[in-house]
Amino acid sequence: MTPTVEELIGSVAAVDGAAFEQARKRHAGLAKPPGSLGRLEDLGAWLAAISGSCPPPVPSAPAVVVAAADHGVHAQGVSDWPQEVTAAMVGNFCAGGAAANAIARTVGARISVLDVGVASELERHPLLRAAKKRAGTDDLSRGPAMGREDAARAVMSGAGIAGELIESGVDILVPGDMGIANTTPAAALISAFTGRSPEETTGRGTGIDDETFELKVRVVEEALKLHEPDLTDPLGVLATLGGLEHAAIAGLILTSAVYGVPVILDGVVSNSGALVAQALAPDCVGYAIAGHLSVEPGAAAALEHLGLEPILDLHMRLGEGTGGLLAVSVVQAAARVLGEMATMEEMGIG
Amino acid sequence: MTPTVEELIGSVAAVDGAAFEQARKRHAGLAKPPGSLGRLEDLGAWLAAISGSCPPPVPSAPAVVVAAADHGVHAQGVSDWPQEVTAAMVGNFCAGGAAANAIARTVGARISVLDVGVASELERHPLLRAAKKRAGTDDLSRGPAMGREDAARAVMSGAGIAGELIESGVDILVPGDMGIANTTPAAALISAFTGRSPEETTGRGTGIDDETFELKVRVVEEALKLHEPDLTDPLGVLATLGGLEHAAIAGLILTSAVYGVPVILDGVVSNSGALVAQALAPDCVGYAIAGHLSVEPGAAAALEHLGLEPILDLHMRLGEGTGGLLAVSVVQAAARVLGEMATMEEMGIG
Repeated sequence: MTPTVEELIGSVAAVDGAAFEQARKRHAGLAKPPGSLGRLEDLGAWLAAISGSCPPPVPSAPAVVVAAADHGVHAQGVSDWPQEVTAAMVGNFCAGGAAANAIARTVGARISVLDVGVASELERHPLLRAAKKRAGTDDLSRGPAMGREDAARAVMSGAGIAGELIESGVDILVPGDMGIANTTPAAALISAFTGRSPEETTGRGTGIDDETFELKVRVVEEALKLHEPDLTDPLGVLATLGGLEHAAIAGLILTSAVYGVPVILDGVVSNSGALVAQALAPDCVGYAIAGHLSVEPGAAAALEHLGLEPILDLHMRLGEGTGGLLAVSVVQAAARVLGEMATMEEMGIG
Repeated sequence: MTPTVEELIGSVAAVDGAAFEQARKRHAGLAKPPGSLGRLEDLGAWLAAISGSCPPPVPSAPAVVVAAADHGVHAQGVSDWPQEVTAAMVGNFCAGGAAANAIARTVGARISVLDVGVASELERHPLLRAAKKRAGTDDLSRGPAMGREDAARAVMSGAGIAGELIESGVDILVPGDMGIANTTPAAALISAFTGRSPEETTGRGTGIDDETFELKVRVVEEALKLHEPDLTDPLGVLATLGGLEHAAIAGLILTSAVYGVPVILDGVVSNSGALVAQALAPDCVGYAIAGHLSVEPGAAAALEHLGLEPILDLHMRLGEGTGGLLAVSVVQAAARVLGEMATMEEMGIG
């Protein structure tokens, strides 16, 4: 009944190159100097390619899915924050008091929280989807973060909620994340998939000091040495080095691609999930838009590998989907401009 | 009855430094790592300073005012586009078919067009405000662009519409511009106020070729040599080198400051109008937010002089208010985050 990761991957098709070209052509004839809307024109063309129609529909029902999980590597001391903050923040999302809630309200996005592996029992809540198969990962610097089956299940949890949201009318998705210590697996995944050294992909997360930062880099190095990631087996890389929310985000991205719905990436956790999705089904990247550039150095490395240029660069590093949500109205504007502007011909100019 | 430019300037007061500090403090205690929202935190603090309250109100009624006018310097061949396009585009704004209309609809902004000096007679329209005292400027490379009284009247036209919009409930303003050849006076104003050479402030506007670009730089050089701008007399600089829409935008910015309403600047014409406003009443810059960085080189020079860092950098160069409008939801999010997030204390963390 439930599809497998292989079936999901097999359903991803490339974006529509003809619609892309049609959008380029249309933009050249709109009532403005050609090219004067810069990257807004590129975005519009991508939206046409994603939807397979020119002009593309204007996304009007955005949703953010905050995938939440805990991390065994937290025991290494890579974060200053206690692990319990993950569960506390899930409560805050449900209560509407997180940054992601405030920004979601600004752009009219609905919010869901996916418990894909928070270490403690969580109270039921209408915004909270229970999809926990294990209470967080194991320590990736000592052994595999999780089993292959766990990773596949987490991917399909993300895929499942994305599919349901899209079936219920959501037409643009933002993956979000919550998980104390989750920038450590993000750095490990980014190093694995991009070949960059841990020094280049590891950041200061919530704001750790020099000593903790050096420890964090060493932990990522040890993990890479221990697992010797085999890039021909992306699910294996995810299972050994990743987190459950990274897996869920990969599933969400793959599903957006299957449905032809744009997905706006957030920061470094989102970006590392996208690398997993790219390795599984390279065509899915065509459906992804980089909402912002996180301060975390791994974000720039991942986006370069994905071939995506971020819309915003506001020196943010919070996660939760905040940077992706902030870009929603720019993406909506790109679609509107392409569909609603008069042409030069209609105006009798040129 | 009607206030004068001097009276307007005299009513501009500095933003509220105490509210700024209060916002900084509040941000440090919100449920996130301190500083993790980067420039969104800075923006929130500025909104507090502008409104004089922390948390600041969330701007919910944005408006763009497209100031439209023509330019005598067009006769020098500084633009590839015929002057008639200004009037045609005014018709397009009224019909809802311009890029500014599409983006205004995206962010829920109302749009007004201010005819502050379009060279032809325009048909009446509910969105069009007639404030024309002269049919465009004279050629600034041959003599003063306009008289001192004309400049003052155009400033007060912008001030007037801004005041009426704010009185009717608008709580965030975006100045826009339409005027074929208007990047030439913009470059001249920016060179005058920043001291940068015309090579550094002149751009390719709608997309002119090398030859036209060199001509345009020469025209700006000649104008600066001819008028020897006296920075102690900003209205005189505006009158000799500026455009009527640049003047109106300066008035709009000054009025936003008087009312304590944030104003989101667009591109190079907007930025040059802000330099005029700054020279008239330096404190007004505290109420201005740079919506985006235009491709026009003068924009970066002007923003540096204003001490403003742009929110977006999407390689745009259209004007009309498009880049300012695109930043509206980021500004709204900055206010919401500050007002609606839970504190660490409320969550029992830290």
